[in-house]
Amino acid sequence: MHSNQRSVGRPMVEASQAVLDHYPSRNGNVSCFIDRIDPVVYTRRHGADADMPGSNGPLNQSTLDDYERDGFVILDDVFTEDEVALFQTELDVLRASPDIQRCDAVIREPGSDDVRSIFRVHAISALFQKLSVDNRLAGSAQQLLGDQVYIHQSRLNFKPGFRGKEFYWHSDFETWHVEDGMPAMRALSMSVTLAENSALNGPLLLIPGSHKSYLSCEGATPEKNFRTSLKQQVYGVPNDEALAQLVDAGGIVAATGKPGSVIIFDCNTMHGSNGNITPYLRSNIFFVYNAMSNRVVAPFCEHAPRPEYICTRENIRPIAGLSKR
Amino acid sequence: MHSNQRSVGRPMVEASQAVLDHYPSRNGNVSCFIDRIDPVVYTRRHGADADMPGSNGPLNQSTLDDYERDGFVILDDVFTEDEVALFQTELDVLRASPDIQRCDAVIREPGSDDVRSIFRVHAISALFQKLSVDNRLAGSAQQLLGDQVYIHQSRLNFKPGFRGKEFYWHSDFETWHVEDGMPAMRALSMSVTLAENSALNGPLLLIPGSHKSYLSCEGATPEKNFRTSLKQQVYGVPNDEALAQLVDAGGIVAATGKPGSVIIFDCNTMHGSNGNITPYLRSNIFFVYNAMSNRVVAPFCEHAPRPEYICTRENIRPIAGLSKR
Repeated sequence: MHSNQRSVGRPMVEASQAVLDHYPSRNGNVSCFIDRIDPVVYTRRHGADADMPGSNGPLNQSTLDDYERDGFVILDDVFTEDEVALFQTELDVLRASPDIQRCDAVIREPGSDDVRSIFRVHAISALFQKLSVDNRLAGSAQQLLGDQVYIHQSRLNFKPGFRGKEFYWHSDFETWHVEDGMPAMRALSMSVTLAENSALNGPLLLIPGSHKSYLSCEGATPEKNFRTSLKQQVYGVPNDEALAQLVDAGGIVAATGKPGSVIIFDCNTMHGSNGNITPYLRSNIFFVYNAMSNRVVAPFCEHAPRPEYICTRENIRPIAGLSKR
Repeated sequence: MHSNQRSVGRPMVEASQAVLDHYPSRNGNVSCFIDRIDPVVYTRRHGADADMPGSNGPLNQSTLDDYERDGFVILDDVFTEDEVALFQTELDVLRASPDIQRCDAVIREPGSDDVRSIFRVHAISALFQKLSVDNRLAGSAQQLLGDQVYIHQSRLNFKPGFRGKEFYWHSDFETWHVEDGMPAMRALSMSVTLAENSALNGPLLLIPGSHKSYLSCEGATPEKNFRTSLKQQVYGVPNDEALAQLVDAGGIVAATGKPGSVIIFDCNTMHGSNGNITPYLRSNIFFVYNAMSNRVVAPFCEHAPRPEYICTRENIRPIAGLSKR
């Protein structure tokens, strides 16, 4: 499939710890595709394996199949207008709060003071804590990952109108693996949209099928990379040739839809977004669920782990009370 | 229509010349909408006014009506695949030419050496000279403007894949008036597309109806503004409130379509484009036609005129040989 890019089987590099590094990146080698050794959907059939967490989750078989094939699904009308209005109000309150404004967990747009993201919202807002354990989200995560789950990261994202900046193509897993020490591909993201996403206001762009290969990136990881990478990613960035191969094979899908939609995408799905000069702002709530069996270890690079607000390490708690576990 | 924005009738400011300034901008005043006093379509009815230049031009009445109402039309399949291939080859030759690379008329992407535009292509390429006088383009221009026409500006535009930068909202006329001394709104642009334009690779975005009001902008014009404005516009930029009003009233249309399409838009239509992180590059050939009766005078600001490669001033020649004049 990826003919021009050197492809290797499974270079298991021993890290400075007991866990083997199946997915080395930024280790001084040239960029290459590495075969994914992890499943995509861990609960293979809806209703099967009744003892497995999530075996009777909210997603139907057709959705599981789409997710397995493409590395993402876009679900319309998951949340009602009233629910979206509640989330929007809470978001406005948080964004205006002086306490939040001063906090480390707030990321601003490059070249302006506009708030781009507020991290760890499941810990600072009772409403978003409740949302993070809602069966529509956490139950689906448990179903796809076939395990109890916890929140690896959560955030509110704002993409302002007029001057919204692009976010370049990346696989989240590449960063979570290298900088956070996430061992395997057993995690996913859920984005709850709070505004209309059209093709023109910088929607999430995804490359179908890109989750099936791991793109090991060139370069190294600078210390405290997260201080700039959350604004504009420079390291762990795929090269043009590799991206063109992925797009040739799978194309690009824009996650457009009404507020209250949920986009679920695998931790290794290549995604990004264009800038936004339209007056239409975008915002969403973002949860990353990780399998309890896939808890982070020491990072697969020589630097200290990223802060707790970006990567849950100390406060790992499985989400309880989900149906049928 | 534009309730929040102060609207004034016709502030005719006397410039440092005989020609009155109907459209003052960047003169130290706050931003405001000014009524357009010029027609949009100068040949009102197809086939009427048989003595008027362009009265039997290539555009039908429905196209003239759409253009009058929206400020633009998008025409599919104007040029054949073979013609597009010829243009593309010529473009590649020009782009690779060391002589062209060294020339002033080449504009690069901000922050890179990628060529963004090559100006004055109708003067440096026999093929593009021929294209500039093709009846499908020049005949349509003459028809819409009801006068003999000349090339005010021409260029090749490249929007690279992966790192194509956005071009912010603007009215061309605002700049052509202030910096070039174009007296009235009797000019238009034609873009011949050489690549597929999709909603995702940074297509031209237009605001329907925006051509009917002139947005006088805040600020002043720095000397030799063109040296940076062709890469990234800072002066003559509409404010957020005014833009939001225009978009509320007219929405946004993305000029998508196959190679060989032609987008014709009025000199005062507000337009821009998002960046492009997809691998799909875009390129087009761009001609600005101005009415012979609307030749540029001294700029409506205190600075020297922009160079000849951006604004034809010395070499004004009406395009001859068009049908029915």
